[in-house]
Amino acid sequence: MRGGIDLGGTKIQAVVVDDAGDVEGEERVPTPTTGGPPDVADAMADAVRAAATAAGVETAELEGVGVGSPGIIDTRRGIVTSARNLPDWEGPFPLAGALSDSLGTRVRIENDVQVATDAEFNLGAGRDYRSILGVFWGTGVGGGIMLRGKPWLGRGGAGEIGHLVVKLDGARCPCGRRGCMEAYAGRKALEERARRRVEKGEKTDLFRIMEKRGRDRLTSGVWARALEHDDKLAHKLIDQAVEALGAGVASALNVLDVEAVIIGGGLGLRLGEPYRERIEKAMMPHLFASDDPPPVHLAELGDLGGAIGASLLIRPRRRAPAAA
Amino acid sequence: MRGGIDLGGTKIQAVVVDDAGDVEGEERVPTPTTGGPPDVADAMADAVRAAATAAGVETAELEGVGVGSPGIIDTRRGIVTSARNLPDWEGPFPLAGALSDSLGTRVRIENDVQVATDAEFNLGAGRDYRSILGVFWGTGVGGGIMLRGKPWLGRGGAGEIGHLVVKLDGARCPCGRRGCMEAYAGRKALEERARRRVEKGEKTDLFRIMEKRGRDRLTSGVWARALEHDDKLAHKLIDQAVEALGAGVASALNVLDVEAVIIGGGLGLRLGEPYRERIEKAMMPHLFASDDPPPVHLAELGDLGGAIGASLLIRPRRRAPAAA
Repeated sequence: MRGGIDLGGTKIQAVVVDDAGDVEGEERVPTPTTGGPPDVADAMADAVRAAATAAGVETAELEGVGVGSPGIIDTRRGIVTSARNLPDWEGPFPLAGALSDSLGTRVRIENDVQVATDAEFNLGAGRDYRSILGVFWGTGVGGGIMLRGKPWLGRGGAGEIGHLVVKLDGARCPCGRRGCMEAYAGRKALEERARRRVEKGEKTDLFRIMEKRGRDRLTSGVWARALEHDDKLAHKLIDQAVEALGAGVASALNVLDVEAVIIGGGLGLRLGEPYRERIEKAMMPHLFASDDPPPVHLAELGDLGGAIGASLLIRPRRRAPAAA
Repeated sequence: MRGGIDLGGTKIQAVVVDDAGDVEGEERVPTPTTGGPPDVADAMADAVRAAATAAGVETAELEGVGVGSPGIIDTRRGIVTSARNLPDWEGPFPLAGALSDSLGTRVRIENDVQVATDAEFNLGAGRDYRSILGVFWGTGVGGGIMLRGKPWLGRGGAGEIGHLVVKLDGARCPCGRRGCMEAYAGRKALEERARRRVEKGEKTDLFRIMEKRGRDRLTSGVWARALEHDDKLAHKLIDQAVEALGAGVASALNVLDVEAVIIGGGLGLRLGEPYRERIEKAMMPHLFASDDPPPVHLAELGDLGGAIGASLLIRPRRRAPAAA
């Protein structure tokens, strides 16, 4: 059995899976908001221990634990630097070493978006294809690319589809640039847009729903509820998000021409099928291969996709090749 | 020795190269404007014959002839369908068979943009890299992609960077869509924009230069001359083209993160270094990897790049592998 951890800005999801990829145990805990990287590492180790207990094993018996992490990842050395949305995590922290010491097994860390793409490609909605584009619509908009059955990482920074320019001289993106897809579609940018509209006097239930749910930001659940209640501003902003996603995903397809698109991420999964369909429709006017559009699927592994994908980072050890 | 032909809307460029890729003979003829595919095939065969004569060989002695062609290519059967900008070439035409019969050697046809990218990758400005994006700025804006040392064609339609959406609800592209990079940067779109501005009363020397040169459209040379003469409208439109190219190329890089960009094409080569530099500068505000931008080079093989690249389609025949 192998462990997998999806390290997110709000939650840590851990799983223990068997060799077929079936989940034997899982645990979800909130990401610590104070204490910095060592406290986050402790919470991650605790979550894996709980998942292992549920699966009936000790962590030291696991073949290893894979981690999908935000930030800049040095996979070889197991170091994570400037992990976005994580507390006080600017400098480098040896996350693999800390976890490995605590859990008694090897640990491998990779980029969270690529890990989730790997999971859908191997076990989820992408398993019938040789090339896919994973679109993770959440706080930002991330992209994962599989070509000829393998991840395409470029020089290490491929798949930044959230920063495709969809509107020259357009809206300011949380990244500081102008006109990025994410400036219209990312949850963080959407919240900023909503706040500005409210300051200008527009009415919306978004922030009332947020407070009622005890949240301090507009979560995917808050947006979903506001849309269900036909909140006018929520509809207006999400319509713009869908339009930007359609143009951006079509642009990425015009470059890559992969066999299929998989839509996941917090907002993507929460809004689900009706919005998958709307994004697909919004792609069409911009898709060069509109006569033969690639299928657009929702991610199948849902909330556990990131953690399951992380577990795939641990491959069975091979024997050393025989001398020639 | 091998032959190579670059089939363009205005000219047919043929070369004969030796095994090192050095050009031993070349010929350039205008593309016939009447007569349809058979007349084009005849002109292509004549051009190869002239290049072969210059190289001191008969065409039947060539290992083969490669062709870079616009249109939809069925490489296996050597058929070209709906070749854009070529006269009366809507239906399928067996170009490889016609040329092969006429020249007495085998013929292989591929997409013109990919062929030019292969040439720069193997022999030109891309030879030091494992992954590149070729940007061909001409009548349209085409893209060629090499990843891990091999062409990436997707399902057959990868690299359509001209149709990256750079402006939602933007200008109408010759392809019929809105806001494509090509709608601002392609030579065809630029000419349409210039004509509309003139109809609205704007002043420009563009069409006077065109007539003086005996042209019926705004060639790359006409644009270059107008820019040299500080024509205000030419500068305004080319500035917009550069801005769109910057956003579009940066967007493609945000997806692909390749090691280098090579700029070629009629306009790209004619406007040359100052505009290579301007496109590079226009990319920066939109490039996610702006701390470590990939180098942007001009295509090195110049006007002959397409024909030399086509010659690379003919690889030396290998012996059949021995039985296991």
